[in-house]
Amino acid sequence: MATTHAEDTSPPSAVAPTRALAEWVATTPAAAVDARALRWARHCLMDWIGVTVSGAHDPLVAILLDEALADGGAGDIPVVGLNRSLRPSDAILINGAAGHALDFDDVNRTMHGHPTVAVLPAVLTAAMLEGRTLEEALRSFVIGYEIACRVGEMTGDAHYDTGWHATATIGTFGAAAGVCHLLGLDAERTAHALGIATTLASGLKSQFGTMCKPLHAGRAAQNGTRAARWAARGFVSRPDGLECVQGFWETQGPDAAPYDMRWAPGDRFLIENNLFKFHAACYMTHSSIEASRTLRVRHDIDPVQVKKVRLKVSEGSLRMCNIPEPETGLQVKFSLRHTAALALAGRNTGAVDTFSDDIANDPGLIDLRRRVEVEPVKIDRSEASKAEVVIELDDGRVLHEIHDVGVPATDLEDQEAKLSDKFRTLVAPLLGADRAAALRTAALTGGDTAPRDLLTATQPG
Amino acid sequence: MATTHAEDTSPPSAVAPTRALAEWVATTPAAAVDARALRWARHCLMDWIGVTVSGAHDPLVAILLDEALADGGAGDIPVVGLNRSLRPSDAILINGAAGHALDFDDVNRTMHGHPTVAVLPAVLTAAMLEGRTLEEALRSFVIGYEIACRVGEMTGDAHYDTGWHATATIGTFGAAAGVCHLLGLDAERTAHALGIATTLASGLKSQFGTMCKPLHAGRAAQNGTRAARWAARGFVSRPDGLECVQGFWETQGPDAAPYDMRWAPGDRFLIENNLFKFHAACYMTHSSIEASRTLRVRHDIDPVQVKKVRLKVSEGSLRMCNIPEPETGLQVKFSLRHTAALALAGRNTGAVDTFSDDIANDPGLIDLRRRVEVEPVKIDRSEASKAEVVIELDDGRVLHEIHDVGVPATDLEDQEAKLSDKFRTLVAPLLGADRAAALRTAALTGGDTAPRDLLTATQPG
Repeated sequence: MATTHAEDTSPPSAVAPTRALAEWVATTPAAAVDARALRWARHCLMDWIGVTVSGAHDPLVAILLDEALADGGAGDIPVVGLNRSLRPSDAILINGAAGHALDFDDVNRTMHGHPTVAVLPAVLTAAMLEGRTLEEALRSFVIGYEIACRVGEMTGDAHYDTGWHATATIGTFGAAAGVCHLLGLDAERTAHALGIATTLASGLKSQFGTMCKPLHAGRAAQNGTRAARWAARGFVSRPDGLECVQGFWETQGPDAAPYDMRWAPGDRFLIENNLFKFHAACYMTHSSIEASRTLRVRHDIDPVQVKKVRLKVSEGSLRMCNIPEPETGLQVKFSLRHTAALALAGRNTGAVDTFSDDIANDPGLIDLRRRVEVEPVKIDRSEASKAEVVIELDDGRVLHEIHDVGVPATDLEDQEAKLSDKFRTLVAPLLGADRAAALRTAALTGGDTAPRDLLTATQPG
Repeated sequence: MATTHAEDTSPPSAVAPTRALAEWVATTPAAAVDARALRWARHCLMDWIGVTVSGAHDPLVAILLDEALADGGAGDIPVVGLNRSLRPSDAILINGAAGHALDFDDVNRTMHGHPTVAVLPAVLTAAMLEGRTLEEALRSFVIGYEIACRVGEMTGDAHYDTGWHATATIGTFGAAAGVCHLLGLDAERTAHALGIATTLASGLKSQFGTMCKPLHAGRAAQNGTRAARWAARGFVSRPDGLECVQGFWETQGPDAAPYDMRWAPGDRFLIENNLFKFHAACYMTHSSIEASRTLRVRHDIDPVQVKKVRLKVSEGSLRMCNIPEPETGLQVKFSLRHTAALALAGRNTGAVDTFSDDIANDPGLIDLRRRVEVEPVKIDRSEASKAEVVIELDDGRVLHEIHDVGVPATDLEDQEAKLSDKFRTLVAPLLGADRAAALRTAALTGGDTAPRDLLTATQPG
């Protein structure tokens, strides 16, 4: 991770961690967000629009929408990808949940979760309500994203390991901080907002595989917004809510390691560690898909030539995505063997539609996947997403490739091109190629664009 | 506690605890709520209206109201005690939070929290939306109340002890169950609602002393309602959400002791264990206030006769309410000595206004409280609220009295009379004596009354 604060641990005027986070949010000007961080933010924005336009058609979104209409009726904040507008808090919930419905949205390992779906819907809506530009919203998004990562880092691994879904819990702090920054709250009010966030945050990992998982992202955005807006009106909480007795860390962070973030600035914003997903399958299949694809392209492999494939992956991934003989499209997403076969056969693993029941039962792919072996290896947690692929060909050649999708991109041109492909694949079937292209351009370059206009442009009309 | 299930622990067809709770809710007809439980429910209702009409003027309510109006605008569910109506979810939040603002609302030790503020606003609102009568709402309230207690009992003491505010967390299950019952959901849907509740529930005890504590009650009611209504529309969660791996108990109930509640019916509804508060001070001062008052009345004591008073109270209460020389009205609420002096002087400890800065600095009361000694004694957790008061008089007489406000009432006529006094004290100054009397009658006897009419009658107009 990019933070380099080992030498800064004894600041002359350390304050309590929650207060330090609040002071950093309140005193970091929008202008401090540099062009590079802003470019990353635009990548996050484009990718979020893509996965949300597609995710908006998930059945869980229809339920949330029907209930919002029954409860509060319509409003004037656009729901991404649908011809609806709702009151702010409902739109935030649904835009967050829809963005996570495909589980195809971005992640950050320092946060231990999905940052953009939790933070961006909150900040964009706050910007609409305050009449701010898209670029202003993106600058506050970078600040909120940073706080999600810092709280995630301080909270430690055990939080997630013991059952908390960090996208839901840690995401709440990111959303609260982003909205506080956009509203221009002072450090005192921001500390209260973070304190309110400690007592609103919830979300359990046991809900993975149910509609509640995507819901968590929307809840983080919605609860973070409430925390910020209540605090702005003078609502009082524990302004030391993270570290106080029976606070967030004592109850939910058994290995929390707080620090004063004002004295640990890092060398860049942590949004530069953002990881995008380019395959519509379980994240732990992505490295072996990438390595397989690289070998196929580099050596012009025809599947009939393949004698044997070995996927050397972390032991942990076997508990997540090792269905050896998948029978449905959903099961294919959790099959290291079948997804590697897809990559070797040149199928588009970036398209949601690829993961169909037909593809699970395709005789050619079944034949190919039966030549794939999964070999668990012990690797350090920090490299858990890494995979090595070894292919033996009929002619005796043995090919090797290692890939780790857990390493953030350094070539932003390449990242933008891959994200653009993904965006087109998701959006063009729903809005048409022209509108998809215009949306992409607006996300990547729009400065004075009103966020409302951008979100309205995602609606079928 | 009243549950007597020791001999029922091996039912022939035990099911998982969450499922059993859901089946009980789905299969217990409204008619199973007997007249006695219904009378308790009416006491809860009357008391809730009293504390909420008064609590509605707390500053935290104004903040929540302003934000609800900014977010969603008005609606048609009445806010208790104010001339406002809001959309359902906002009204539920505010009616729950206002009810807990004075911390003068009822408690249940099996639940480990405040049941009525968490459950009743949710069920009353559901009844309004479904066009049901007050009596129908109260029957579903008894069911929701029961589930709050059962989940609280199964979850165990460590949940609260480690920092969770059970009113917030456990209350969510009660609200969800009450609304599920009123909506007539089947066991499958109710289990999903309880599963959604596991991942929405939140609230930390570290927030005691801040506006977040009352907020928690409203959040429980609001989140429980959402869980039930989303489940009614087909939203999917873990229907074994309490007991599953990384579920509610694994993450937040270190000493959870689940059982199949269908086979542990108890001999009466747990609403009959409800405890009302009759003094507007910290709960742990109530037993010594009651014992002091009993001795004053029984022996016609004049404070000048009092030589010395000893309050024998649990050690734990010293950490909560032992400010020896309070200087403000708020501090008086947490002073065992000063509250005992108030009781011996015949002051009305049931009136919120009694706890003023003037009363803290009243020379006569200061003189009297200096004759009061607090003596900690070791007592079992189940009797932690008990107090013994020993008064030595000038003439050599030594008087003793023991009281435990933690023992539920058995004389419902007496309880109703005391609650009526409390209700008048809270409501008459705001709505006038006539309207207070009419509201009391409606709460205690209204059957076919529309819940909307009852709540509208709490508004100043």
